[in-house]
This record gives sequence, structure tokens and C-alpha cells, in this order.
Amino acid sequence: MKEQAREELDLQQFNIRTDLALEARELAKPDGGPIPGIHSEVTEDDGITITVLHVQNEQGSQAIGKIVGQYVTIEVPELRNGDTTLQDRVATQFAKHFESFLERLQINKMAKVLIVGLGNWNVTPDALGPIVVENVMVTRHFFELMPDQVAPGYRPVSAVAPGVLGITGIESSEIVRGIAEQSKPDLIIAIDALASKALERVNTTIQIADTGIHPGSGIGNKRKGLTKEILGVPVIAIGVPTVVYASTIVNNAFEMMKNHLEEQKGDTNQIFGLMNSIPENERLQLVKEVLGPVGHDLLVTPKEVDQFVEDIANIIASGLNAALHEAVDTDNVAAYTH
Amino acid sequence: MKEQAREELDLQQFNIRTDLALEARELAKPDGGPIPGIHSEVTEDDGITITVLHVQNEQGSQAIGKIVGQYVTIEVPELRNGDTTLQDRVATQFAKHFESFLERLQINKMAKVLIVGLGNWNVTPDALGPIVVENVMVTRHFFELMPDQVAPGYRPVSAVAPGVLGITGIESSEIVRGIAEQSKPDLIIAIDALASKALERVNTTIQIADTGIHPGSGIGNKRKGLTKEILGVPVIAIGVPTVVYASTIVNNAFEMMKNHLEEQKGDTNQIFGLMNSIPENERLQLVKEVLGPVGHDLLVTPKEVDQFVEDIANIIASGLNAALHEAVDTDNVAAYTH
Amino acid sequence: MKEQAREELDLQQFNIRTDLALEARELAKPDGGPIPGIHSEVTEDDGITITVLHVQNEQGSQAIGKIVGQYVTIEVPELRNGDTTLQDRVATQFAKHFESFLERLQINKMAKVLIVGLGNWNVTPDALGPIVVENVMVTRHFFELMPDQVAPGYRPVSAVAPGVLGITGIESSEIVRGIAEQSKPDLIIAIDALASKALERVNTTIQIADTGIHPGSGIGNKRKGLTKEILGVPVIAIGVPTVVYASTIVNNAFEMMKNHLEEQKGDTNQIFGLMNSIPENERLQLVKEVLGPVGHDLLVTPKEVDQFVEDIANIIASGLNAALHEAVDTDNVAAYTH
Amino acid sequence: MKEQAREELDLQQFNIRTDLALEARELAKPDGGPIPGIHSEVTEDDGITITVLHVQNEQGSQAIGKIVGQYVTIEVPELRNGDTTLQDRVATQFAKHFESFLERLQINKMAKVLIVGLGNWNVTPDALGPIVVENVMVTRHFFELMPDQVAPGYRPVSAVAPGVLGITGIESSEIVRGIAEQSKPDLIIAIDALASKALERVNTTIQIADTGIHPGSGIGNKRKGLTKEILGVPVIAIGVPTVVYASTIVNNAFEMMKNHLEEQKGDTNQIFGLMNSIPENERLQLVKEVLGPVGHDLLVTPKEVDQFVEDIANIIASGLNAALHEAVDTDNVAAYTH
Repeated sequence: MKEQAREELDLQQFNIRTDLALEARELAKPDGGPIPGIHSEVTEDDGITITVLHVQNEQGSQAIGKIVGQYVTIEVPELRNGDTTLQDRVATQFAKHFESFLERLQINKMAKVLIVGLGNWNVTPDALGPIVVENVMVTRHFFELMPDQVAPGYRPVSAVAPGVLGITGIESSEIVRGIAEQSKPDLIIAIDALASKALERVNTTIQIADTGIHPGSGIGNKRKGLTKEILGVPVIAIGVPTVVYASTIVNNAFEMMKNHLEEQKGDTNQIFGLMNSIPENERLQLVKEVLGPVGHDLLVTPKEVDQFVEDIANIIASGLNAALHEAVDTDNVAAYTH
Repeated sequence: MKEQAREELDLQQFNIRTDLALEARELAKPDGGPIPGIHSEVTEDDGITITVLHVQNEQGSQAIGKIVGQYVTIEVPELRNGDTTLQDRVATQFAKHFESFLERLQINKMAKVLIVGLGNWNVTPDALGPIVVENVMVTRHFFELMPDQVAPGYRPVSAVAPGVLGITGIESSEIVRGIAEQSKPDLIIAIDALASKALERVNTTIQIADTGIHPGSGIGNKRKGLTKEILGVPVIAIGVPTVVYASTIVNNAFEMMKNHLEEQKGDTNQIFGLMNSIPENERLQLVKEVLGPVGHDLLVTPKEVDQFVEDIANIIASGLNAALHEAVDTDNVAAYTH
Repeated sequence: MKEQAREELDLQQFNIRTDLALEARELAKPDGGPIPGIHSEVTEDDGITITVLHVQNEQGSQAIGKIVGQYVTIEVPELRNGDTTLQDRVATQFAKHFESFLERLQINKMAKVLIVGLGNWNVTPDALGPIVVENVMVTRHFFELMPDQVAPGYRPVSAVAPGVLGITGIESSEIVRGIAEQSKPDLIIAIDALASKALERVNTTIQIADTGIHPGSGIGNKRKGLTKEILGVPVIAIGVPTVVYASTIVNNAFEMMKNHLEEQKGDTNQIFGLMNSIPENERLQLVKEVLGPVGHDLLVTPKEVDQFVEDIANIIASGLNAALHEAVDTDNVAAYTH
Repeated sequence: MKEQAREELDLQQFNIRTDLALEARELAKPDGGPIPGIHSEVTEDDGITITVLHVQNEQGSQAIGKIVGQYVTIEVPELRNGDTTLQDRVATQFAKHFESFLERLQINKMAKVLIVGLGNWNVTPDALGPIVVENVMVTRHFFELMPDQVAPGYRPVSAVAPGVLGITGIESSEIVRGIAEQSKPDLIIAIDALASKALERVNTTIQIADTGIHPGSGIGNKRKGLTKEILGVPVIAIGVPTVVYASTIVNNAFEMMKNHLEEQKGDTNQIFGLMNSIPENERLQLVKEVLGPVGHDLLVTPKEVDQFVEDIANIIASGLNAALHEAVDTDNVAAYTH
């Protein structure tokens, strides 16, 4: 309930659609200055930028419109190039950070895990979750059917893609709830495609959060959430932005042009006139008014979405296999995924 | 429990794999003579043969190894030819007979229905259920989200494909149970691919039964059933044989050759020697012993399985749409399916 | 050769990527005024706008950077809504206009036609051509194998999807040339996905042109063309814009905002400052400079691209079936396509 | 012409459908005795049996109904188990034997190769060729576009899947001929799905032959061949049996039962009666007469055909990559295929 209110606040306040905490922080404080209740640390490693962002309290939550919790964002601008060595490095980093979530949440080595791939397999940019589910190692049935024969170093993992409301007629959160009540996992991992405010983050960014999935997030318009409150066990959310609003591209470009010209020439008032002094949310409103009616304000995705989504889904599946099973480590991670 | 015992009996007694009641009856009484506790009626309509088989009591159940209940089998030998007019006629017959099940089970016009597509979407002959689910009209969410705006003549229908144990790590029956507890349907329809004992029935036959799905049936080795006892609401099972054991083809061929020669020449003892007088189950045992070790005794399916499964899934989806919604009738049935 | 020069001119002059003659004309004369050597007529029919644009001579060709020839553009802004009645109407209009091309080119009723679906079936927005090929009626083999048995009202039609350079290692134009030399069609129809300059035209617009496919057009970066000069028979090109550059969206939005504010308030100089008076091509250059380096300037496509491309491919396939075969008319057109 | 005659002879004489030279030899001489004009050598390596069969002259060709040439058959009964280590070993063996074909045919290291994937991608057991084409390394365009930048150790390879007559309306051999005339390869490799006479060889066997593809072979009923005579360059054929006739299964089973009983009890005359002394071709004729009319005599394929075909296509693609490019060797072979 409270979360829903806050999400709406978020949308009212910024009027910019993003599911990334990193971007919500950027919007709240474009100059990058400190925000009370928000702690963040950035590390870089040869093309991989990792931001650990902690929303520490209600004050921080209000400030950026995101729930209290830990958010790790892995940004890899070159990820779209299809370089398999880089993909392996990202999977390793993902596994490392995912393991730190397991530790903090005190998920022990044999705790049962249910992986939930949200989204619509018939809509390529929304198919991330289902593709991850097709590619992770599923082991729960071995523990159920022949517990004595399972090699050490594995835990019971199950995985489902519940589909979307338009395909099943049932909220995906209801489906997950029903399955969780039957299969009794100790942890749920929910994977979803997200919207970003910046085209360069689309299909190049992975967010991990210990907050679960909240209503209104994700590109499939989930109406109910997947959270510890609803499901009774911790929910780690993994998200990848795969789409961006055309209006956000335009608004973003405007901002970038301003900055670009400021660097070069100084007086942007002269160049941009009144547009320069319009607050960002009013400008975005203007952009939406203009684009909306004529069919311009769509969610868009890069032309190569099929390959991009497949690549990043494989990275996540490899990373999850390594993080969840001691016997699978970050060196042999790729061998367990196809 | 008792059902399980009976299924095992069935397998012991006949040692021939079939999921069709029609074939179980044929095996129990090859000469077609009456069986106490079994009532059946056959009607023919220009290439469509419909058998309504009623297992009336325990005695009948013991005799053919099938649970007490009603079984309707629609046989259409020409169905593999891809004739769309014939397909439409089969959909219409299917809808008519399916409606009679709804009446007998006293499922009223607004009762909520959950359609369950069992099987593995990555294995073409086992993908029947998931393909039907992709093609039926799903309406439950309209009733949930905007009940006032739903046109008359529709009922709330939801649909899921729960996957198979090897993909999810969870029994499909557990998944369905969880979803049913959340979404509270009044009737469950379970669609599954079956094994037949006769190649000519593969992809040409549809069975409807009010008995639900029982352990061990279907080609995906379901280990638990979907029945009224487990799920709390009636379960209508729809099955299509899509595979047959190589050993069954051989055994069947032997029988057919015997009959063929008997008609022509009389003395099959001379022709077939001792093979002629071997009881069928012993002969099948012999066939299995011979074929098994060298990799001959596989479940096989016709080469054109992709098209055959797609065609018959569309027939079932069309038939279900017509049978479940008053506003969709058997004339416009095809328009609602793609 | 000359065409190539002209295309390059086009790209230099406008620096805006579009494959639609309609848009090239808009760019050349934003106020819609007359252009010598260009004749165009617009008709509207209940949500379908059809523009017949004739590039009459070299002067017109120079002016808009498109080859001399006839271009018919069918714009249907509501096409993305999935309304099957509208889809059928568009197929009918498409068939009617396509038939007028056949007449003008004096393609007789029995002339042999080769349909070529250009593009990459693994890249959804580029898969239009291959999907059309999967859905058109192919009849040539009946004429070759049993000419006496073909019903009247049909012509010999063949269809191939040659793939793209990255998949085959061979230019698609070389593949088509080789196939044409063997199969000797009298007319080639080439279908390709295009880039537009306007997001609202993406997946809502079909262009038919008697000019063939020229180097540099289409989203798959075809390096050689498919023209009468190369192939020896007339080539009708059918194109649908499925992608747009992010920079074009931004530039377009800027223009729309200017117009929007002009209507409302008058003095856009004050509002937009110097940006107002920058020529469009310089402004676009600026947008590209800003977006390019940071990975913003991608070709993008709407999120729902899978469904949109499938719908429009079916419309084209239906329309072609109706236009090419006398026995298939615009009433029963849908029945011949799945 | 002559080849066609011989193929027909083959079908008349044995009346058993097989595309494997190995099986043709078995049929011609069931006791395994020597056949003049046929030389064969068998080697085994831990689960992989390799038969090099040489049809040396017309006499040998007449005897087994196969064209003069070299046939290598790789049999791996355990291949269906999905063991990736075994798959890698088979790819390595395949590469080794394929290289010996290149040597014998004096195909030098830089000779241009065109890989042709025959078959219908919409029919899973016939999709082998197209799947191989999707998975091989294609390099010809690099040599055409930037010859100076291609690393040493590679040769120009192109790859096409020409489709089948029912999809394109054009004979696949005509399509290949046209493409070959444009792209001028020095060698053509044609991959096709075959029919076997033994279910245990289905999806466990690879045949390599230097004879090209002859009319009537393959499961897609190719009507014209792909041979050096037609195409002007050598054609190496790679085939995998993916289907078997139901009648062949039955006939084969009969034979196996006879042998089985002979080993155990001796007097099969008593057991099988006259059936025992019927010549094989008459018995098969009987089986066909019995099965044919009632829809039993279909081409069938194992239930798990999707996975089996994908696995074996990947083996062939890996093996081809290693055999064709010096820079790819049999250790890193898997890395180049996905």
C-alpha cells in the first residue's frame, strides 16, 4: 500500500519513466550531490561500472522515490558488441554481487530457491525473464525424487515463467503465490524487463535489488507486486532495461544538447531561449503533449533486440548458476548454460 | 490410490501402452463383444467416428483398466490431410460433445474455467497442451478488472501451461494446484498428449473424459494426477495420441498380418507356426525383449508432427472457445482462433 | 551508378535517414508546396491515406533524391491496434493498388512472378520479407509438375528469402540473380523492411514502388540493388518502415515542438533562442554529435515489434495473393493466408 | 540418368527404403560376406564405430545399388543421451574424416566452399540442413569486402538453406545451381536428412559421401540431384537418418525376432511357420500391404526429435568449422558454434 503510494509520487514528481534506482537518483539530484538517506559507491573495472546504492531510510526513499533497500547496478556500455569474453566477465561480476545479496539475506547454502521469469515470451523486449528460466539449472526435482544421489555443492532450484495477464487471465503475482505455497522456497528470485530513461542503458545494464518487484514496475504493467510481504520469503529482483519511452529519449537529448553547448559556448540562454529555463518536468510534459497524440510516444527498443536480450539472459543465467551452486564456480559458469 | 493400482494392473495385464479408453476396450475384448459394466455407442458422420464409452462401475473398470467415467473419442482418419473444411467440422463436433460434458457435470454458463496445457513446449509431440493454451480465448482478467464492461455470452476463462518437471523442477500437478487455489476456478480442463497403441490413431483422434488426468498417463511421464480429489473441482481431460511405441507398432502389425492372412488363406498356424498361438501379451513381451536392448523400442511420432500437432491444437482451441462461451458458436468458431 | 550517386546526395543533403519517397518529399519541401517534376495525389478512405507520388523526370528526382518512378504509400495510423476488419480493408486497398502496378508494367495474367523476401529472419524488425514469403501462396511447382491440372485463375508464383550477408556470406542480390536466371520469372517483387524519419509511420505504412530496390535502402544495409538493370525483368519493391533512428526522433520532436508552440504563442525565437533559426540539417548534425558517442543514436523499433511485423506481413501476403491470382479476390483474400 | 536408373533398381530389388550405403550393403549381403567391387573397413573407438565403405566399380555399384564413391559412416548408439563429452568426440572424428575427403578431392586450403542445408525448416526431422547452416562460421563476405584483414587460417565459406519445393515453388537444385553460378565455389557441401532402415540408427549416425546428392534420396523427396555433373564442382554429401518407415520397423523386428529365437531355441520353422522361409522382400511387401491402407505405414521419428536434430546439427557444424579452417582445430571446435 505504502509502496504503491510512493511509486505514484515518483511518477508525479518526475514524470519520467525509469525502473532503475540509479536513474531515480540522477533525476533527484542531477548534479550528483549527496542526498540524505542515500549512500552510494561506484567501482569500475575495465568497462564494467558497478554502483552499490543503498536507500537507508524513509528520508532517502522519499527523496528518490524508491523503497528502502540495496540496489546494485552493473553498467557495461560495450555489452551490445557481442564480445563473449566481456560477457563472461560480466557474468562473473554478477555472480559475485549476487552472492553478497545471499549473504546479507542469510540465505544458506541449501536454502531452496524459486526463480521466476516475469514477462511475455511473445514480446521480444519483454521475454528476458522467460529466457533466463529456460537457461538456468533446475535441480529441485532431483532433491525430491532421489535426494541421496544429488552431488554435493548443489541446492534445490526450481524455475517458472508465469506468463502475463493477457495470456493467462491471472495476475502473475497470484500464480507465483500459488506455486510458492505448494513448493515452499526459502528465497524467490524475480527477473523482469525494465524501462530506462536513457537509451544507452538499454540492454547494457543489470540491476539487482533486495526489495522485490513492486507494482507498476517493469514493462509488462504488472499490477501487483512480488514482495516478502506478499510471498512470505525474501524476494531478490533482477532487472534489465530493454525499452525506453520516445519522449524520454527526446527529453534526455535536450538535456544533453544543453550540456554539450554549455561546455562549448557558454550562453545557452541565447541558444535555447526560454526552453533553457523550463524545469525538466515541465519540459517533459511539453514533449509528451506534442508526441503523444500523433503516435510518437511509444516504448521503443533497439533494432537488434532479439540478440541483445538473448545475450543478457545468458549472462544472468550463467551468473545465477554460479552464485546459487557451490559446485559451479565463476570459471566454469558458461559450461552450465547453453 | 485405488486408481493408481488399477493403472498398474492395466499395464501388467496388457503390457501395451495406450492412454485411450477405446483401445483399452479393444485390448480387453478384441472381438468387440459386450463387457459387463461397459457401455459404448458409436456414431459416424462422413469421416468422423464418435464413440461414447461409459465405464459404469467397478466391474467395467476392472475389465478394461480405466476409471469409472465417461469417455468420448473422436476419430478422424483423414485429419492428417490438412483439409480445413474437415477441421472445422471436427471442431464443431468437438464443441458439441464437450458441451454435453459441461451439462452432465452441471457447469453453469458463468462458471469459471481454468484451462491447463500439460506437456513440454520444447518437445513437439508433447507441445499439444501449451499450443492450445496459446490459442484459446482468455477472459478472466476482463471479469476481474472491468466486470461491468464484459459483453454477455462470455464466461471467465484462464489458461496456463505449467511446464514439465525437467524444466521447472516442480510437479505440474503442484503448480496447477497452487494456481487453482489462488484463482478459484469451478472447472479445470486439462489437455495432454497421449500414447496410442495404433499408429493410425496418432494425430487423428481426440479423447474427452470426465475422469481428470491420472498418474502415468500422457507422454511426459506425469507422476501425479490432476483429479477432482486433488484439486477440489471437476477436471475434464482432453487428450490426443501423438506417439506410439515402436514395439506396439510391431505387435500390432503382427496381429494385422494374422488377420489379413486368415481372411485370405485360412490356416495361419501353418504360416505363423507357434507365433500364431502365443497370447498377445507374451508376444509383445518377446517383441520388447528383442527391440529394447538395441535402441529400437522408442516412442515414435510421424515425420510431419509439427503440422499435425498445430492443426489439432487449433481444432481443440476453436472447439473450446465455442463450447465455453455462448457468444461464440460453432459457425464463427474459427474466427476466434488464429 | 547514377542512382547510387543520387542516394548519396540525398544522404548528404538532408542527413536524415528515410526510405520513403513520401518523407523525402516532405523533407525537400516542408511546406508541401509544388515541386517541379513531382506529381502527387492523396486520397483518404476512413483511416487509410493513400498517396500516389510520381517522380516524373530527372528534375524531380534531383529535388527529392528518389529515382524516377511511381511510389504508392498506404498510411494507416490505427494499424497497430490489431483491428482485423481494418487489416482486411488495408489488404484490399493494397491489392487494388498493386494491381494497378501490374497493369502499368503490362504484366499479363499468366506472367511468372518471383517474390523475394529480403532481410534477416533472426532480427524481428528486419524479418518482414521472410515472413511474407512464408505466407504467400506458392504455385510455380504445380505449373512445372502438372500443368494440366492447375485450376484457371492462378499464375506461377515462386518465393524465396535469400537471407543477409552476415548469415550466408553472399550478397542477397547475387543470390536473387542466380535464382532468377534459373527460374526465369517475368516479374520480381522484392519486400523489405525500411527506415522512416517518423516514429508514427513505423509499422503503419506500406510503400509500393516500381523502381526496384536500390543500394543503401532498407534496414539491413543491402550493398547492391535489385533492379531491372541488374535482373533483366521489372522489379516492384514493397517496403514497410519498421525502425527509426533515435536522432531522427529527437530532431522530429524538436520540429513538432516548434510548430506546437508557434500555434499557441507566436514567438518561438524567444522560446527556442538560436535553436529556432538553425537550419534543420545543422540541428540534426548537432543532435547526432551529442547522441552518437554515448550510444544513444541507435535504430529503434516499437516494443511490440513482433506482433506489428507479423500483422503487416500478413496484410501484404493477403494482398499479394489477391492481386496476383484472378481466382483469389479481395473478399476471400484472408482465407488463403494463415 | 544412369544413377536414377540404379536408384530405382535399388528400390525394386530391396523394396526397403534406406539412404545409407552401409545399410544397402547389409541388405545386399545380410551375412556380411564379401561383395566384389565393395571394400569396407570398420574401426571402433569407445562407442564410435566408423565404417569406410568404398564402392569401387560398376559391379559393386550394381550389387548394392549405390553410386561409385567413398562412403564414411559414423555410428554412435549412445548419441541420443545428450552427453556433451561424447558429442565433442564425435565432432572431432567427423572433422578428421571430413578432412580426408578434402585431401582426396584435392581441395586446397583456400578453396572456396558453399555449404547447402537441404530440407524444410518447418518440419523438425527435415530441418537438419537448415540448422547446420545457421550454426556454421560464414566467412566469404570478409574475403570479398576486406580481403587484407582476414586472419590467416580461414577460407571463404558461404552457406545457404534453399528451402523445399512446397515452400519456394522452385527445385532446391535449381536454386543451388543459380547461387553457385553467381558465387563460384570450388566445393559444395550438401547436408540432408535421410531415411534409415533401422530405428536405432536414426539420429545416431552420420554419413559422409563424395558422391553428391542423388535424385530420390533424403526425406524431402528431392526430385533433382546435386552432383558434380550438374554443378560443375565436387559435391560432398553429409546425411543423418532422422526417419524410418513404420513398415521397415516391423520388417526389421521380424528379422530380429527370428535371429533371437534361433539363438535360443533352434527351430524357427516350427515357431514362425511359413513366415520363416518367405524371402525378405516378399515379407516386406506383405507388411506394406497390411499397414499401408489403414494409415500405419508412415515415416516416423523419435519423440525427442527436436533435441536430437539440434544436437547432431551442432556436431556437424562444429566438425565442419574445424575441418574447413586451419585456425579452428578439433580442440577449440565447440567455441565456434553456439
